[in-house]
Amino acid sequence: MRFSSMLIPTLKEIPKDAEAKSHIVMLRAGMIRKLASGFYSYLPLGYRVLTKVETIIREEMGRAGAQELLMPAVHPVDIWKKTGRYDVMDDILMKIVKGDREYILGPTHEEIITELACAYIKSYKDMPKTLYQIQTKFRDEARPRFGVIRSREFIMKDAYSFDADAAGLDESYTKMYAAYQNIFSRCGLSFVIVAADTGAMGGKESHEFMVLVDFGEDRIVVCDACSYAASTEVAACPASAMTVGENKNKPEYFDTPDIKTIEELTAALTCNASAFVKTLLYTANDETVAVLVRGDHDVCEAKLAKVLKASKLVLADEKTIEAVTGARVGFSGPIGLKKKIRLVADAAVAAVSDGIVGANKNDQHIKHVRYGRDFTADEVADIRAIQDGDPCPQCGKKIELKTSLEIGHVFKLGTKYTEALEGRYQDKNGVQQTIIMGCYGIGVNRIIAAAIEQNYDEERGMIWPAAIAPFPISIITANQKSTTVTDAAEKLYAALTEANIDVLYDDRDERMGVKFNDAELIGAPIHVVVGDRGLKENTMEIRDRRCGEKQSVPVGDVAGYIVDKLADNK
Amino acid sequence: MRFSSMLIPTLKEIPKDAEAKSHIVMLRAGMIRKLASGFYSYLPLGYRVLTKVETIIREEMGRAGAQELLMPAVHPVDIWKKTGRYDVMDDILMKIVKGDREYILGPTHEEIITELACAYIKSYKDMPKTLYQIQTKFRDEARPRFGVIRSREFIMKDAYSFDADAAGLDESYTKMYAAYQNIFSRCGLSFVIVAADTGAMGGKESHEFMVLVDFGEDRIVVCDACSYAASTEVAACPASAMTVGENKNKPEYFDTPDIKTIEELTAALTCNASAFVKTLLYTANDETVAVLVRGDHDVCEAKLAKVLKASKLVLADEKTIEAVTGARVGFSGPIGLKKKIRLVADAAVAAVSDGIVGANKNDQHIKHVRYGRDFTADEVADIRAIQDGDPCPQCGKKIELKTSLEIGHVFKLGTKYTEALEGRYQDKNGVQQTIIMGCYGIGVNRIIAAAIEQNYDEERGMIWPAAIAPFPISIITANQKSTTVTDAAEKLYAALTEANIDVLYDDRDERMGVKFNDAELIGAPIHVVVGDRGLKENTMEIRDRRCGEKQSVPVGDVAGYIVDKLADNK
Repeated sequence: MRFSSMLIPTLKEIPKDAEAKSHIVMLRAGMIRKLASGFYSYLPLGYRVLTKVETIIREEMGRAGAQELLMPAVHPVDIWKKTGRYDVMDDILMKIVKGDREYILGPTHEEIITELACAYIKSYKDMPKTLYQIQTKFRDEARPRFGVIRSREFIMKDAYSFDADAAGLDESYTKMYAAYQNIFSRCGLSFVIVAADTGAMGGKESHEFMVLVDFGEDRIVVCDACSYAASTEVAACPASAMTVGENKNKPEYFDTPDIKTIEELTAALTCNASAFVKTLLYTANDETVAVLVRGDHDVCEAKLAKVLKASKLVLADEKTIEAVTGARVGFSGPIGLKKKIRLVADAAVAAVSDGIVGANKNDQHIKHVRYGRDFTADEVADIRAIQDGDPCPQCGKKIELKTSLEIGHVFKLGTKYTEALEGRYQDKNGVQQTIIMGCYGIGVNRIIAAAIEQNYDEERGMIWPAAIAPFPISIITANQKSTTVTDAAEKLYAALTEANIDVLYDDRDERMGVKFNDAELIGAPIHVVVGDRGLKENTMEIRDRRCGEKQSVPVGDVAGYIVDKLADNK
Repeated sequence: MRFSSMLIPTLKEIPKDAEAKSHIVMLRAGMIRKLASGFYSYLPLGYRVLTKVETIIREEMGRAGAQELLMPAVHPVDIWKKTGRYDVMDDILMKIVKGDREYILGPTHEEIITELACAYIKSYKDMPKTLYQIQTKFRDEARPRFGVIRSREFIMKDAYSFDADAAGLDESYTKMYAAYQNIFSRCGLSFVIVAADTGAMGGKESHEFMVLVDFGEDRIVVCDACSYAASTEVAACPASAMTVGENKNKPEYFDTPDIKTIEELTAALTCNASAFVKTLLYTANDETVAVLVRGDHDVCEAKLAKVLKASKLVLADEKTIEAVTGARVGFSGPIGLKKKIRLVADAAVAAVSDGIVGANKNDQHIKHVRYGRDFTADEVADIRAIQDGDPCPQCGKKIELKTSLEIGHVFKLGTKYTEALEGRYQDKNGVQQTIIMGCYGIGVNRIIAAAIEQNYDEERGMIWPAAIAPFPISIITANQKSTTVTDAAEKLYAALTEANIDVLYDDRDERMGVKFNDAELIGAPIHVVVGDRGLKENTMEIRDRRCGEKQSVPVGDVAGYIVDKLADNK
């Protein structure tokens, strides 16, 4: 394409309100435009990248035996009510009411695909089947941010597998897992696969595909020693190695007026937070539960929800806390609760030999408290969030927490949706069974953002992996007024176009500096500079955008050189 | 693809509630599935056609210099209020309200593209630009019908051109017009281009691309003698040829109790409807207007709106009619109106020499009325709908009205949107001017429906044009249990796949009859039958789905034969 005819509105200045590098580059290079908070248009340059990513996804999904289809964005609500997610996902649903009809804009498609596939899958012979679409999703995020990373309208590749048994699901899951590795590799991303929580989706096993970036939304656990990697929501915190010390003191109430937080307490007593046991009250489904973790630890709500088998989990309100403990917020503890409720303690709490707890009395705590002697829990489990420097659950060395961005997620869903929507098949013996599902999502926009976050040079802009570059080649003329230059550039442009290579030919009558800056910002991996000086010696200059290397190549060899170089990059 | 692994849920019986052939075939061949009224999923087979049509569109749009982008489906309402279309299009808008935020789902994108493009187009040097997207639109049609022909969620290719002057717009328009011809031709459609009304879109010139089908939504005017073709909304009804007869009688009131319609009147008086002049009261914008057409004619509201320069035009209500005429509905006429209002008469009315009109008195009409003598209109214009058998406006021979379906529409929009949204550029002399727009739409789903309507055989099913066939080739094995047969079929399947040809290989262990029926229903243009009998003589049978011709081709020549045949079809 000729730069002069394209709409590529590059910006010199760094736009306000953009924090993430990818957001800044996408705005500066004229790839996207904001329509409203959380809603972006893809301009021609951005759209080219989107298309290339989608093509890679389609190729790999096809290779894995998945079939593409397309479901509506607008859904009737009845089917969402059947699975209960009309309520569970209420806060992010965008709803349309027309007279007595009500619709939602699909935030995901488990309900719709289940109804669709189960209308046709009636026998074990009809499986396995994996169906997918690349489609627009809508989620009313409270705080859209980072450009296309968290937006209200976004493009997702969502696949769904249907199998007769667990072994079939394993196979379908493995195929998608492998396809995802291929997709992200071909898009030039460096990524980490972590075991993940299945959360509100339901199901038994799940992996997240994460890229490590500065402006991610998640934190993952990585062990450099043994290559262990996991979502913080599932990374185990082994308590076995902890030794429990002696404690010959008796529990002793003491006054702590106006002290409500662990920080205030450790400051007042000049001791470590690990000497305390925090008691938090949660409402799990409809039950109030006391949850104990060490003062230097935090509750991992995903782990806790699993232990409690709770689909809804929130911190109890002030009123409940006062009713249960008999004291104000900040003085809850496991001893002397006014009401008998379930107590769940983290494994590390069970190893506290001489600790401090809230007294369930206003302005009082108790010291010299020992688990097992002075209080016990109904359940002891790993319910705390792993921390930077904690031992690796696999090798025991220190783990690290890293900021990451989820680009893909695979789930073994099981029968959650097929049970709710009566998706049954007849097995080999003529018996009716429930169909087993998996689901597999890729945030298409996020691949682009991730590629930018990982391939960017602070001063100059983008360095695209060739496979998803809007243009793998930029031709820059040093002087658009010289017909020697433009003739040579036009010839090269025609030759590369003929070879099916996407070329951005900067034919604008602009200063060299402007053209170079734009070329570096837009970030084709290979730039060809056509100038009078080089042409006098019958050469053009080829620049490698990533390493900066420049080479003079004889004019007749340039096209061939580029074709070879791009083939190497694939 | 192997039939056994694909989701192709063919139906034997004709589905209920489906009238249009395309709707029936799409359901029977397992191309689509209804989710709710007006919302359809494209199943894998249907999706393949969609992709092929979209690819053709992209190629031709690119060739015409248009750049692809992608705008959001969800729009903030403020911009729609600025152009007034938030009100004008109210009945079809799907709205989302979230707290104090209100959005609509885009039924089209003039507002959004104008804001987007005009943010970047600042100089005459930035034009011409034509931008387009292939994107999902939402219109809350009151009566969705004919499957994907009139649905509430559908896929549209919408392009928008931006030019500095009228000559530029003409050029952009001509390019799109030509691109549309290429697109529809490549999709195998036979179509008619008609001059069309610009209606609510605004603008000066417009053409519709129509296919003639049984279950169309529109009627167009076609003259077989001179190849004139036009939308009924613009086809002129020349009145010049009409001779006005003598009338020596004086107007005479007569009783017509309980008679309200022209049909009742002609029956009672045993005369022709052409002897009457109908008077209809309209509310145009906020003014009440009396509109006169001959009893055998109908008002063409598009023509009338243009004459009245009305953006809103509806029939007046009963109350208004009684207030203006002094009589009940059914007795309105041009003589003796109670209130003085504007009178607009169709040209044919001005040629009535001895007619009957309503008396503006209950249960009375007047006969022997002559235009010019007994009443006149403020305006005489062509405001009637053209009828079957009317003279051709071009050659005077008889025209025919044909049922048609709009698949594309091109408009010279002018400055309607750039004026409302302040889209200005600086011209060569440094003067600010308003940007001139065109817009160009294609109903992507309708291309598929139209292709089916035009390439269908009543008993057996679909006959796809090769370019958009889900599979141009079907391989059918006569006996899946014979390894001779399956080996030969697999080899051919591999060879064709290698040659990048989409093949549907029916590898199911089903009876021949079932496979043949499905193959004919699905409608690949070429079928290859692999059977033991043929293989004994080292041949396979190649069937042409359209003409039914069968040929025995030596096994070694089959792949080459098919490659050649498909190349011919392109």
